[in-house]
Amino acid sequence: MKILVTGGAGYIGSHTTLALLEAGYEVVVLDNLCNSSDAALHAVEGICGKSALMIRGDVCDRALLDRIFQQHSIDAVLHFAGLKAVGESVRKPLEYYETNVSGSITLCQAMAAAGVFRLVFSSSATVYGEPEQMPIREDFPTGIPTNPYGQSKLIVENVLRDLSQAEPRWSIALLRYFNPIGAHDSGHMGEDPSGIPNNLLPYISQVAVGSLQELSVFGDDYPTADGTGVRDYIHVVDLADGHLKALQAIDGRTGIHTWNLGTGDGYSVMQVLRAFEQACGKPVPFRVMPRRSGDIAESWADASKAEKELGWKATRNLQDMVTDTWRWQSNHPNGYLE
Amino acid sequence: MKILVTGGAGYIGSHTTLALLEAGYEVVVLDNLCNSSDAALHAVEGICGKSALMIRGDVCDRALLDRIFQQHSIDAVLHFAGLKAVGESVRKPLEYYETNVSGSITLCQAMAAAGVFRLVFSSSATVYGEPEQMPIREDFPTGIPTNPYGQSKLIVENVLRDLSQAEPRWSIALLRYFNPIGAHDSGHMGEDPSGIPNNLLPYISQVAVGSLQELSVFGDDYPTADGTGVRDYIHVVDLADGHLKALQAIDGRTGIHTWNLGTGDGYSVMQVLRAFEQACGKPVPFRVMPRRSGDIAESWADASKAEKELGWKATRNLQDMVTDTWRWQSNHPNGYLE
Repeated sequence: MKILVTGGAGYIGSHTTLALLEAGYEVVVLDNLCNSSDAALHAVEGICGKSALMIRGDVCDRALLDRIFQQHSIDAVLHFAGLKAVGESVRKPLEYYETNVSGSITLCQAMAAAGVFRLVFSSSATVYGEPEQMPIREDFPTGIPTNPYGQSKLIVENVLRDLSQAEPRWSIALLRYFNPIGAHDSGHMGEDPSGIPNNLLPYISQVAVGSLQELSVFGDDYPTADGTGVRDYIHVVDLADGHLKALQAIDGRTGIHTWNLGTGDGYSVMQVLRAFEQACGKPVPFRVMPRRSGDIAESWADASKAEKELGWKATRNLQDMVTDTWRWQSNHPNGYLE
Repeated sequence: MKILVTGGAGYIGSHTTLALLEAGYEVVVLDNLCNSSDAALHAVEGICGKSALMIRGDVCDRALLDRIFQQHSIDAVLHFAGLKAVGESVRKPLEYYETNVSGSITLCQAMAAAGVFRLVFSSSATVYGEPEQMPIREDFPTGIPTNPYGQSKLIVENVLRDLSQAEPRWSIALLRYFNPIGAHDSGHMGEDPSGIPNNLLPYISQVAVGSLQELSVFGDDYPTADGTGVRDYIHVVDLADGHLKALQAIDGRTGIHTWNLGTGDGYSVMQVLRAFEQACGKPVPFRVMPRRSGDIAESWADASKAEKELGWKATRNLQDMVTDTWRWQSNHPNGYLE
């Protein structure tokens, strides 16, 4: 089985590429390296002794996609390629819509032209908007995302739903990620955002390693136990494993299928911070700032549908996540650069 | 003033191109002629003695757009190019999302790169979904369109809204059309859909002219006066005039502005049919069929915002619309083909 992994050099993409190679799949990675490094794929090779074929290019490039499908007998596509910074998406909406929406449309057209109809799409819990109750089930209505990043994920979900209705031969998995953190336990692969991190864990760990001065905690007056926002953090290696299970589940099973990928547990910003301090053995300075617009108080998954239908369940807990993050960050204070 | 009109050889685009030329604008038309004919532009020239520059090409072709903006000093864009058949959009969603959504994103990126920030977009009353009351005002919430065509219009509206938020220098008009019908009163320009028409008027007129056998009336049990669906039909020449007014209104006025373009009057399918029979002087056979899924009972505009802010008001009534349609259809039973 040969899998095309778009965005396969990125944070989640590279961990999934590793899992695919370890499970015996052949992997072709397409990545434009705009927010990733091919060093991630060298790390993959160092860990498992197998390598993916890396093609540098853009998912919006239809001619390139056509060539890839002509030259490789691709069985399925895992589609990670996309822009993912919420704040940047507000400032540069066209880039987000082009890469995330137009890119996905172009990919699907190239797949259809090549006769490839199995697709796993990286969606996000952001498509739920602000749900009225927790935990979040897949049959909750989707909400109205408050930023172009979230909009782009919801639009692609809806495009794929329309596609599945029109062309029943497609097998599509929409994986709604909660908050992926952590790193491979080798300490040689992890999250390596370019510029100032947008997400909690890389930010905390860059403070701990001395690259940044202090963490901003956005809001401590939410209606949660300690006032800070609560999220369902999931270890990236568990998440990668979820992709393999989804890929297998839709083999021979047409239609469109939605699965939450989360642990089912919520942790507050302060809980994560304290856990991280334990893991790294030093205090992480922070400052409380006003809430960010668009942030919700809490969000965690009902992960039972994935367990029942995919036989998948996250096995790594918060301490594993922060310990692995710290191992990666302290081994590689400059990410993949050094 | 030089205007780029995408889809300028199409039904509404060609009537607007005529209005622009008559008002003294220079016009560059970009049209791939997938559902239109350059004979429409010859008709424009025959009527007004001026001609638009026709460029055959696709709005998704970024390199072509860049060349057009380099070679012409474009002041504003009227963006008509798009696919518009509701039923087809359900069968071919990717084509609709590519042309309508990706095409609009590509166009905006080319505009921004060229420093052109004035855009009039062809939206549709379909973005309102099924409103709870009539007439429909612009401040009604948008609904959830039931087909990819409608979805694509709503997505582009939202993309443009995000763009306007991010880049306040843009001046954008979203024109929400109700049901454009009619033809230029010369009898030499009109609607010329390829294949079986999807909309009421071209269908009726092709029955009247003998090209089709009978009209299907979808549903006669709606909660309306005669049981058939009620719509706000607007004469295409009034609609074209609305585009000029919107183009002028956003000159020097940044932000994003939404205007309904309708008459404010609703007519049922049976009323339109009877009016058409009067105009053509013969009976038009019809058969009542079940309702089509996704059709709403009635829809008409509150057109007062356009009147107040644009100084625009539709001046042609239903009898004008059907008379002009019949003149075009009877002069040109095969549309622009002969």
